Amino acid sequence: MKKPARPTAPDPDFATKVRESFAHQGAMAHLGARLVRIEPGSCEVEIPFRPEVGQQHGYFHGGVIGAIADSAGGYAAFSLAPAGSAVLTVEFKLNFAAPGDGQKLIARGTVLRAGRSLTLTRAEVYAVKDGTETLCAAMQQTVIILPARPGREN
Amino acid sequence: MKKPARPTAPDPDFATKVRESFAHQGAMAHLGARLVRIEPGSCEVEIPFRPEVGQQHGYFHGGVIGAIADSAGGYAAFSLAPAGSAVLTVEFKLNFAAPGDGQKLIARGTVLRAGRSLTLTRAEVYAVKDGTETLCAAMQQTVIILPARPGREN
Amino acid sequence: MKKPARPTAPDPDFATKVRESFAHQGAMAHLGARLVRIEPGSCEVEIPFRPEVGQQHGYFHGGVIGAIADSAGGYAAFSLAPAGSAVLTVEFKLNFAAPGDGQKLIARGTVLRAGRSLTLTRAEVYAVKDGTETLCAAMQQTVIILPARPGREN
Amino acid sequence: MKKPARPTAPDPDFATKVRESFAHQGAMAHLGARLVRIEPGSCEVEIPFRPEVGQQHGYFHGGVIGAIADSAGGYAAFSLAPAGSAVLTVEFKLNFAAPGDGQKLIARGTVLRAGRSLTLTRAEVYAVKDGTETLCAAMQQTVIILPARPGREN
Repeated sequence: MKKPARPTAPDPDFATKVRESFAHQGAMAHLGARLVRIEPGSCEVEIPFRPEVGQQHGYFHGGVIGAIADSAGGYAAFSLAPAGSAVLTVEFKLNFAAPGDGQKLIARGTVLRAGRSLTLTRAEVYAVKDGTETLCAAMQQTVIILPARPGREN
Repeated sequence: MKKPARPTAPDPDFATKVRESFAHQGAMAHLGARLVRIEPGSCEVEIPFRPEVGQQHGYFHGGVIGAIADSAGGYAAFSLAPAGSAVLTVEFKLNFAAPGDGQKLIARGTVLRAGRSLTLTRAEVYAVKDGTETLCAAMQQTVIILPARPGREN
Repeated sequence: MKKPARPTAPDPDFATKVRESFAHQGAMAHLGARLVRIEPGSCEVEIPFRPEVGQQHGYFHGGVIGAIADSAGGYAAFSLAPAGSAVLTVEFKLNFAAPGDGQKLIARGTVLRAGRSLTLTRAEVYAVKDGTETLCAAMQQTVIILPARPGREN
Repeated sequence: MKKPARPTAPDPDFATKVRESFAHQGAMAHLGARLVRIEPGSCEVEIPFRPEVGQQHGYFHGGVIGAIADSAGGYAAFSLAPAGSAVLTVEFKLNFAAPGDGQKLIARGTVLRAGRSLTLTRAEVYAVKDGTETLCAAMQQTVIILPARPGREN
């Protein structure tokens, strides 16, 4: 598709707020996921393999693949949200392209269109095996931006 | 929708194979998910709340909701698969209806149409709070049935 | 899934506004689609077969199946929207269960959860051949409710 | 995402078979859609505006946007299918990014991963108004490849 212009984050502290929000997600910590990159409109999350994130064939579990794809897309959207607002996933759809076979997964989320209320993102998840990346899953997602209100934390 | 006729499982040992497969999923155990019901064409998975499956607002993490929805739909499909075959999720789509706010989640998966190669399922995830169930998410999923071959385990 | 309580339409003129909106959709008329039933939270759209809505194998075209599923879900959502508001589809996902083989298609849309801003729906599309209905496709959809403002028509 | 290597079509007559199949789709002709480009793994379909493809606000109907997105993705997949095989859409998901406001729509479909049996595609639909393209919708799709058998035409 046509490369959209590089977006600007309306909140200058976007990276800090994203990192703080990620750090408060017990599930991401429990799965061993790490936020490795956050830029305006894009985000990268990775997770190393261990049996606790696997399924019965020794690959990454599909639910785990979905969880980091959702997270990468959601934080890409959050990076472009105004200061004080919060984000929630409305829906996401995940297509698997290959088994999650490797030492780690990398999910890269990108904003396709940032709206005042709804933001559309995509993410791709790659399985990294012996240094080679293979497309493992592709996601498409809707995120809602909830306006700032007193006392809300993200 | 019109209630489909109650399906019959071609594999008489469907419940055993589903339970064994579930027991081999490290990720489901790590999240604390339990298979609570398996019948021909339907499956129920639940998971109690604890911070390890939560997000930054104290609700169940969306990725965890997706993981058990995917699992409930996939095992509903597996219950109708011929003996010796395996199943893989091709894709799933999850719409969130309300925050995952409660002491536990229940995901109920149902087969809409079982094909020779592709099976279409739906699942609903309910958050259970003080005994009341609230619809939390709705899923629609495609599962592929991989025919039996020597040496494959599910 | 658990049967939700039968919803109430906040706009007493819901049926009239839905029928008028549908009548203004050139594409629905061009495809030959008819709104056959509208109730609070549910809607039925049907379309007879003719080559103009077919694909290369003589079945209904997938795009036409998607169009009436989207329409049935969207109008189910619109039936529960406050007077003066408008609705727009945010996204929909369609799984095909069988070829659209028959003399007509019937799409039945239902609201799963009506929110102030976002409404979640499902629809099923049946192909009717010699009086027998076969599930042809299943849809899951997000609709946004745009509040009333002076001069907007639906 | 990482740019995949440019794919090679296993069927040297891929362009001819795609054009012939498209020409046999009554629904595409009825909507006024044209196949404007077909290359290995990618396809472009466009459609000019007229009231017959519109909705109640004078924009392109969402169902029409879905129909050409599905078509562009499906023919991108078909371009990489072996000679004699046929393709069917298993499912597609469409997110709307902006109203379909313009003189024409262009849908660009691309194969993300071509499998022996299942192919994963994405498409973007742009509304072209006074020469400017605006992203109108994004699609993600699964297509199944049906192997050649005597007497089947695509």
